[in-house]
Amino acid sequence: MTTRVPIVEKILSANDHMAEENRARIESAGVFSINLMASPGAGKTSLIEQTLSRLKDILRVAVIDGDIATSIDSDRAAAAGAQTAIQINTGGDCHLDAIMLRSALDQLDLTKIDLLIVENVGNLVCPASFNLGTQRSILVASIPEGDDKPYKYPGMYRGVQVLIVNKMDLLPYVPFNMDYFRKGLEVLNPGVVTFPLSCKTGEGIDAWTDWLVGQVKVAT
Amino acid sequence: MTTRVPIVEKILSANDHMAEENRARIESAGVFSINLMASPGAGKTSLIEQTLSRLKDILRVAVIDGDIATSIDSDRAAAAGAQTAIQINTGGDCHLDAIMLRSALDQLDLTKIDLLIVENVGNLVCPASFNLGTQRSILVASIPEGDDKPYKYPGMYRGVQVLIVNKMDLLPYVPFNMDYFRKGLEVLNPGVVTFPLSCKTGEGIDAWTDWLVGQVKVAT
Repeated sequence: MTTRVPIVEKILSANDHMAEENRARIESAGVFSINLMASPGAGKTSLIEQTLSRLKDILRVAVIDGDIATSIDSDRAAAAGAQTAIQINTGGDCHLDAIMLRSALDQLDLTKIDLLIVENVGNLVCPASFNLGTQRSILVASIPEGDDKPYKYPGMYRGVQVLIVNKMDLLPYVPFNMDYFRKGLEVLNPGVVTFPLSCKTGEGIDAWTDWLVGQVKVAT
Repeated sequence: MTTRVPIVEKILSANDHMAEENRARIESAGVFSINLMASPGAGKTSLIEQTLSRLKDILRVAVIDGDIATSIDSDRAAAAGAQTAIQINTGGDCHLDAIMLRSALDQLDLTKIDLLIVENVGNLVCPASFNLGTQRSILVASIPEGDDKPYKYPGMYRGVQVLIVNKMDLLPYVPFNMDYFRKGLEVLNPGVVTFPLSCKTGEGIDAWTDWLVGQVKVAT
């Protein structure tokens, strides 16, 4: 129905160039960084809170929160123990881009942190097109969103290295066919590292934070 | 962090012009039309199924489904009793626009329907900026998304005439402060028509379909 116009290609190419610069800057500082993406309300901020509650005494963690309005998320990250929490208000834009991340990095002393968590705008479409320069792109899915999401948002499901399936505690209360979900996932992103968990009950969080600590050790 | 560039203003203005044309065309055919918007997985398609199951024998309903990939939603609408179900694949675009709707209208005989349901791409940001020309813009929120969504997605919450709060059956299982949700809503969109309901249990659906039938009677 639509075709990608040349100006969009140029914007994406400029973004990729800037993302490479961000990545070099983050890696040379010995920091491990992740780009958390999800639908609105899938639980990115709750996951950050759970992660910080477990890691704040063993890792120095900074959080950069992208949102179209408010500082609710960065306030929650700061309250949960982030060493630094920076809010990027996108002014209505539906995703973060590498230039926004660079501006936020300018406000951080990367030599004083081990882990950088970037929380993207809640959106399953647009953020998938904008590489930020973090070492891993991570999707937080959630059970009540339904089992057809890999089929309907293939760009997002294809482009991530890690998948978190949050709100596993709601599985008894909603229609969700795990086999159908996994089948879609397997086609798009075979073997993707997956963590089923619940930020509400705490189930499965340790496996996720253990993995994260391992990645930080490799990077630093 | 960003400013809206002139080219975007021009695109939006061209879209508004086309939306007016769509609206005139729909109204002159005596059709009532709605633009359903929501996060991925809030339950737009389930709501359409529930609506069709109640109205298919008393109204002639067409459904236009916008999605970035697949025809899952239009297949579900057709199976549920839509007289016509048309799929718009946006090819990756994060929202429908008035030009896409016009192309879909070209495939419909408006004189043979009473109600047109347009299901937008699952996204709480981008669709809010693109008027399609339907008589009502409707947001489907859902309980597991959380009570802070009006604060975080003000453009969407401000721009709709009707709010549906789906998955009310999950209220006992998730943290959701209804007073906090309502307070945000009241600031952005005071007095907005609201239907709390559950597509799973059927609770509250009749109030919604009664309202819809009333609106169709006024339009036709």
